[in-house]
Amino acid sequence: MNEETLDPKDWKAMAALGHRMVDDMVHYLQTVGDRPVWKHAPQEIKSHFTRELPLDPQAPEQVYEEFLEYVLPYPVGNIHPRFWGWVIGTGTVQGAFAEMLAAAMNTNTGGLDHHSANHVESQLIRWFREIFGFPAGASGVLTSGCSAANLIALAVARNAKAEGDLRRQGLQGAKRRMICYGSEEIHSSLQKAVELLGLGSDCLRTVAVNDAFQIDTGKLEEAIAGDRERGFLPFCIIGAAGTTNTGAVDDLQALADISEREGLWFHVDGAFGAWAVLAPGAKEKVRGLERADSLALDLHKWMYMPYEIGCVLVRSEQSHRSTFSLTPAYLAHGEGGQGLTGGDLPWFSDYHFQLSRGFRALKAWMSLKEHGLRKYGRLIEQNIRQASYLGSLVEQEPLLELGAPVTLNVVCFRYVGREGEQTRRAGWTERTEQEEQAVDALNREILVRLQEGGIAVPSGTTIRGRYHLHLAITNHRSRQEDFDLLIREVLRIGEELGVGS
Amino acid sequence: MNEETLDPKDWKAMAALGHRMVDDMVHYLQTVGDRPVWKHAPQEIKSHFTRELPLDPQAPEQVYEEFLEYVLPYPVGNIHPRFWGWVIGTGTVQGAFAEMLAAAMNTNTGGLDHHSANHVESQLIRWFREIFGFPAGASGVLTSGCSAANLIALAVARNAKAEGDLRRQGLQGAKRRMICYGSEEIHSSLQKAVELLGLGSDCLRTVAVNDAFQIDTGKLEEAIAGDRERGFLPFCIIGAAGTTNTGAVDDLQALADISEREGLWFHVDGAFGAWAVLAPGAKEKVRGLERADSLALDLHKWMYMPYEIGCVLVRSEQSHRSTFSLTPAYLAHGEGGQGLTGGDLPWFSDYHFQLSRGFRALKAWMSLKEHGLRKYGRLIEQNIRQASYLGSLVEQEPLLELGAPVTLNVVCFRYVGREGEQTRRAGWTERTEQEEQAVDALNREILVRLQEGGIAVPSGTTIRGRYHLHLAITNHRSRQEDFDLLIREVLRIGEELGVGS
Repeated sequence: MNEETLDPKDWKAMAALGHRMVDDMVHYLQTVGDRPVWKHAPQEIKSHFTRELPLDPQAPEQVYEEFLEYVLPYPVGNIHPRFWGWVIGTGTVQGAFAEMLAAAMNTNTGGLDHHSANHVESQLIRWFREIFGFPAGASGVLTSGCSAANLIALAVARNAKAEGDLRRQGLQGAKRRMICYGSEEIHSSLQKAVELLGLGSDCLRTVAVNDAFQIDTGKLEEAIAGDRERGFLPFCIIGAAGTTNTGAVDDLQALADISEREGLWFHVDGAFGAWAVLAPGAKEKVRGLERADSLALDLHKWMYMPYEIGCVLVRSEQSHRSTFSLTPAYLAHGEGGQGLTGGDLPWFSDYHFQLSRGFRALKAWMSLKEHGLRKYGRLIEQNIRQASYLGSLVEQEPLLELGAPVTLNVVCFRYVGREGEQTRRAGWTERTEQEEQAVDALNREILVRLQEGGIAVPSGTTIRGRYHLHLAITNHRSRQEDFDLLIREVLRIGEELGVGS
Repeated sequence: MNEETLDPKDWKAMAALGHRMVDDMVHYLQTVGDRPVWKHAPQEIKSHFTRELPLDPQAPEQVYEEFLEYVLPYPVGNIHPRFWGWVIGTGTVQGAFAEMLAAAMNTNTGGLDHHSANHVESQLIRWFREIFGFPAGASGVLTSGCSAANLIALAVARNAKAEGDLRRQGLQGAKRRMICYGSEEIHSSLQKAVELLGLGSDCLRTVAVNDAFQIDTGKLEEAIAGDRERGFLPFCIIGAAGTTNTGAVDDLQALADISEREGLWFHVDGAFGAWAVLAPGAKEKVRGLERADSLALDLHKWMYMPYEIGCVLVRSEQSHRSTFSLTPAYLAHGEGGQGLTGGDLPWFSDYHFQLSRGFRALKAWMSLKEHGLRKYGRLIEQNIRQASYLGSLVEQEPLLELGAPVTLNVVCFRYVGREGEQTRRAGWTERTEQEEQAVDALNREILVRLQEGGIAVPSGTTIRGRYHLHLAITNHRSRQEDFDLLIREVLRIGEELGVGS
């Protein structure tokens, strides 16, 4: 037979290309701060990606040239010191290297035994249990991120608290409508999860928040009581450890108490905020998450690792496994002994909807070892300090206005201009709706100019109905002067535009 | 402030480490065939991963040494030319490099506009539409694999065919029980999806297969009629393009006809088998998948790309988007114009349960360009030819027995030994249950010895109640002599053991 392969014809040339890539990527990251935060990809770049399906081969070097010209110069920009939009992490050089190592091994971590990758992931899960105060018997699995982690956690909650055999019968035969609770500030992925799970968004009660943007626990208790009266089945309370909008952390102790009293599952979405446990100055804020039945968290946000990596921890290993474990003939395992299915550990696919899984554990394992947990704690504290610093800059500046208290690493503020300054002194509720709309429009324009100018990337959001610039500082490259620069530029652009312009 | 970063103190040293990694990985893959396919990680290796949480930093070089000693030597082995267990792809050098590039850019592809990564993914989706004969208006999104792709597709099917507003009301208020159909040979991820979606496994009718392990379409039609009579709501037929167990491809044309006639959603799980469209000699076998309402496929299996990468295509973009699109204030987008939320393209998170997503498109885009689609077609055909060759070796050997016809790239066979040879001549149904159990045990032991000896890695499965060695050939490194070696070794080990030993 004339047999072919995808292996390189010339291994040395391939290695040389790899060397070039390493040098280019190291240089790219070393100099990232010298470039604009973000560069709007022009139409001729976008048009390049409408070309037809490649039927014939191209030299790897040529493909790499194409990458250098059309792909690399137009990232989202979250690797830059002045990127703070949404909640997006930064990544590291070593994290990128680790992805190459993992892909070279190309281990499938869905299961199989007596290979290293599953032990790396098991070790991580043990470390995370320790970090978040979960008991030794708790289970956990790495995920693509918090959307998947929240989905897995709510699936376990749903199945654990259902009245029948939910895996078999589904919700189609449910006698009582299952209801879960979270504040109106919880993440959209939780609504997506509830919808995907067949519960329907009607079953997600979004409870109002207090002035600190935390769930109003009095209203929560009323909602639960009301649902019980109506004959529904309350099953889960979702606590937010760091909301996207304002970084607010719900009173997790109170939520744990209510969950306990009411016999409900307590899930904490700790996407980024859970990591505040590492910062001596902030860990008190997330006290209570160690009492959760399940905890979702990301490592590609506030742990600065490259995409994708999240994790879910579940207090009851049995509930976790009985939601996901499913073993067809070709996956029979767990009998102890020899061979690739011979171990006695559960497989990670027993805890996840994914069967095939990559070796995402490696970048986390290598990163934690290289930097040590204490350094992550200091960096998280640094971001909190930077948020607090930025908040104080806003408060000192009469033309600017904070949208919410700065509790963690999120800052929301807006430019209100000279008119704003006057109404501000009198209390901003006195501004007319027309004036407010002008302020909204002004801030939208400020944001566009910050982004298009490559100056800085905050995002925008709506706080109590009004548009604000939004920063979530999950960036290990940001420096104090970057926030000074942001404020200067917002004032400059705001001045140029003026309210109502 | 005394500010810290995760960036290297010494960029040159970090680049030097990257160079070492490139050389090591290239060498590792170049020489993979010289090593055992798989090496059982010994207890002292496993014990290494029970060490405590690292609080303090270690030099990156030192962490890499640890990787070299404890992680790298113990992969699952699917990079090796003689790994054919389950259905696991091989990976490539360039794929591993691309993962490094993607992680260096660290772009979040959940959304945001005017950046390159989303255009790369859009282009891939267009190419896949063309490859699989989907119309220009069809939507698609990359996934972690087929588990997620099947989940997304069935969610869209469920919501599109539900009687009420399923996103809002869920299944809790459903009047008629929704039912879907697939053969008893469909993949476990589909049952997991059905359970996760709240439908319950009771709603998944697993229809018997014919002698070719394809769904029995007569029985399928009976099942649908029966469910309608009982007042249920049939909503979806699942076709398999390549089952895990035997590689069987359902009669997709017939399933498309039935779906059309009955007004049901037609989903095809084409995890690996869908790629047979690229092989001129095999594409007829999967004819009909271009009529599917949704198609799930993997690129980390038969397209040999490193983990994780799969894809789902959906004929009705509107159904797809209306299942997943959800836009909280901080993600408002699609208004056209400037800034990172200014474009008019839908975001990929509008088609997926994930919000944050990595840049997995890059490895697929670079790989397709480097090798060209025609080469992938030839490699897939090569694997089919190898399966057919192995099948013929089994048929020529009286001590061996095929478990199922070889249709694509999957081969199931067992060693039946001298006694087996005699009963075989008389037809294997005449073997007593005790004899059959002895043959099962013998083959289990053969498999363990093949694996533990590092000789070859088939997996094991049960076909019509009996244990068989199972090979899915999705390996671009396998050569004809590898299959000769496998047969020689099975016969040698079988001989050594003998039935009943």
